[in-house]
Formats: sequence, structure tokens, C-alpha cells
Amino acid sequence: MKKPLILVTNDDGISAPGIRALIAVMSELGEVVVVAPDKPQSAMGHAITINSTLYLNKVSAENAAITEYNCSGTPVDCVKLAVNEILHRKPDLCVSGINHGSNSSINVIYSGTMSAAVEAGIEGIPAIGFSLLDYDWNADFEQIKSFIRKITIEVIKNGLPEGVVLNVNLPKLPENEIKGIKICRQAKALWMEKFDKRKTPQGKDYYWLTGEFVNQDKGEDTDEWALEHGYVSVVPVHFDMTAHHMIQQLNTWNLNEKN
Amino acid sequence: MKKPLILVTNDDGISAPGIRALIAVMSELGEVVVVAPDKPQSAMGHAITINSTLYLNKVSAENAAITEYNCSGTPVDCVKLAVNEILHRKPDLCVSGINHGSNSSINVIYSGTMSAAVEAGIEGIPAIGFSLLDYDWNADFEQIKSFIRKITIEVIKNGLPEGVVLNVNLPKLPENEIKGIKICRQAKALWMEKFDKRKTPQGKDYYWLTGEFVNQDKGEDTDEWALEHGYVSVVPVHFDMTAHHMIQQLNTWNLNEKN
Repeated sequence: MKKPLILVTNDDGISAPGIRALIAVMSELGEVVVVAPDKPQSAMGHAITINSTLYLNKVSAENAAITEYNCSGTPVDCVKLAVNEILHRKPDLCVSGINHGSNSSINVIYSGTMSAAVEAGIEGIPAIGFSLLDYDWNADFEQIKSFIRKITIEVIKNGLPEGVVLNVNLPKLPENEIKGIKICRQAKALWMEKFDKRKTPQGKDYYWLTGEFVNQDKGEDTDEWALEHGYVSVVPVHFDMTAHHMIQQLNTWNLNEKN
Repeated sequence: MKKPLILVTNDDGISAPGIRALIAVMSELGEVVVVAPDKPQSAMGHAITINSTLYLNKVSAENAAITEYNCSGTPVDCVKLAVNEILHRKPDLCVSGINHGSNSSINVIYSGTMSAAVEAGIEGIPAIGFSLLDYDWNADFEQIKSFIRKITIEVIKNGLPEGVVLNVNLPKLPENEIKGIKICRQAKALWMEKFDKRKTPQGKDYYWLTGEFVNQDKGEDTDEWALEHGYVSVVPVHFDMTAHHMIQQLNTWNLNEKN
């Protein structure tokens, strides 16, 4: 069987330990090409670069086993450039991460890691975003490699339906304390912002965005519940953002009557 | 009846003609506070600023009818700062736009305009994003003001269910040729990227992202269909990205069996 072509990207930048761990797992499973940001691009959401130029630099040696490029743009730019300018074809799989920190629940919408996976999904490529609930640069990714391998093998084997990508979050636990893998829905949660207001040396006000995560969802079928209870959470994510249940109600509004 | 407090933002920047037109309509309907980016922030998606500082400048005169601030951050940052640092309470409505250009179908996911509306929705604020299918800086926003007024009045009157915001796109047509307002779903569409590869004066390759829009959806209930046929499209958008229909199928995978 031909080895699958696997595109690896992330949002923490090409030198982050998380992506190095992901590359290590993927290189056992397929032919790996890495195209990742040249600097951290966390919380970039689905941003793309349209008002400035993009650079792409090959950083691996000519005879290296894995081809690696860094890119000056966002995670979504990386996927677009990889498919169009490097691979010149759809890879068989795109994996993004391993993110240093959670992308569970509402974080999916802010996450550069997940936006790269979603972009791959839009382009018809099976895709998975992986995140470890540990913001430490030196987080222990060894503990979770077996779960990443297992999920990736299943995706290669079963494929994913068109328009669906996986958001995988892993608890910060030793491997033998992780209870298993749970299929979940996105928990209803939000960040309560707190701005840290400061003054520049010149006396001008400025702000740092900080916040407190609030899970408003008591369901036991959510990613937050799974992670709190020691499971790996897998949420199937799609990018049809239509609130289909609302269409009927909106059709009762008087939008087309003259006032 | 007390006038509603309306937060106005956008992604083209505070001086764009689109937001000026939106402010004009909203000032007839409520008390308006503007918090918008100090520079264009198109295609920023749901990006937030966590690795650098944010500035907020009051740009309206003390006795002006409308209070206006510009912000150094993204559209989502503007909403967060407005709610937390300026208004110190939830506004009754948040409107974003009028965007210079379409945010229909898959564009919802790249759009700074819509991400600002979605952020408001996450924070429990009824929200609408407005976009005109005209990329011209000097587009004629007069033609669409009556539709924006109508939709906004209906939202103020009916409210929106929690977790739903509206994505409104308006065709580039004279007012009397616009056929009406249609409730739609997001069309299945994508951008086929094309990179314009160039060389710097120093001989280094760089890229501009360009692309061609491809509507893959033949449905007559989509926003693309409505806009092509001369209607204003209204898509209810939510931010639960779970592909609920996929959960059952994923539960048949062998994720928890030993290899």
C-alpha cells in the first residue's frame, strides 16, 4: 500500500516542541511534508493574509527524510501555500498541532491550530487538529503519542465525510491515567474577558487581553466533561455555520412587508 | 421606550464609508457607540490579540452625539474592549459593517466583519453583520439603507435566540431593483487559491494570495442563489461547530480497542 502523504502544520510555529512530536508520530505513518508558521500565530482564528506578501522558506536539507518549509503567514495561509505551491496536489491527510494548550469548546473558533484543519477540510482534505491541555513550552508530549497514533490510523482507515474535520484535545495526564477516547460535542462555554490596563512609560493607556474560561454546559457529552474526567475528547467539526433550526422562525418575521 | 444601546464596529476600519453609512442608519434607531479598528482588518477571521498590546483612542469630541473609539486590534478585540472597558455593560445590539464586499457562504469564516458579530453573539448580545457586494471604497450605500433599517428594526423587536447572529449580504443593485429579503442557508462554496508568485528586487520569491470563488451548491435556498437573483440574503449563524450528524458514525470506530 502506498504511504499516505501527510501535511503537518500548527500555530505555535515550526520550532515548537508540539509540532516536533506530531512530526515524529506522522513519520511512522506516511510521507510527511511540514509547512508551518515561522513564528507563533496563536489565536489567529481563520485569518488569511491578503494585504501583505507571503514568504516561504525551505528549511530542511535536500536529502532530509522530511521536507519542511516555514511560512511568514497564518496557519490557514500555510495550508493554502502547501497545497498550491509545494505539493501541487491534495495531501491524503492534514494534521495540525500539537497545540500547546486547549482548543476545546469555544476555543475552536479562536484557534489557529483548528483553523488550519478547517481550511484543509474546506479544500476536501481529511484533517485533524491536536491540542494538549498544557500551555508549557516543555510539555510532555510523549504521554499522548499513542492516542494521536490511534486516532490518525482510524482516520486514514475510515476517512472522514466531506466537510467534517476532527478537533482532538488531550488531557495533561500520564498515559496510563488517560481513560480512553470519547466522541463529544463542543461544550457551550465562553471567555469572560478581563483587560489588564497599564500605562506606557509615556503615560498612554494600553491593554493586555486576559480572561477567565467559563463552562456554562452541564452536559456529560461535551468535550469539557470528557477532558475533566480524564478522557481524550474528539469533536467532529464542520464549517456550515448556518443555524438551520432558526430558519423557520425567521420566516415568520415581517421582513418583506412595507412599514 | 428607552432607546436601545447599539455598538457599531467593522473590519474595514473606522474611516471606511461602509461604517459611516451604518452609523447613520443606527443613529436613527438608538444610542450609538462606535468601537472600530484604526486600520483595515479584512480577512482577520476570529483573530484576537494576545501576544501584543492594545490601544483604544477616543476620536469623537466630548459633546458629539455619537461616541467613537478606534482600536489598534482586530474586530473581535473591538467588541471585547467595547463591552468591558467602554460600555461596562452588554449593549442591546451589536452591528458590524457595512463590509465593502461579500461575506456570503464560506466567506463567513474568513470575515472580520462576521467574526465581530459572532463574538458579540458569544457574549450574549444580539448581533448582525452587514455586507454589500461591492468592493469599491466609494460604493453606493444609500441604495441599501432601507433594508438595513428594516432588518435591524425586526431584530430589535423580536430579539434573536441565544447563540444565533445574522449574516446579511446585500446585492449591488439600485434600491428599486432589489426584490426583497430572503432567509437562507450558507451555500457550500470555496475559494480556489491562486498564488501570484513574484520576486523581490533582491531576487527572493514571495507570494500574493489571490483566488477564484467557486459555488458548488445548486440549492435555491442558499445565500448565493438569493444574491444572484437580486435578493438580500439573511443567514442565521451559530458558533456550535459540532457536526452533530457525525457523532453516531464516529462511535462505531475502534478508538478504544487495543491494536
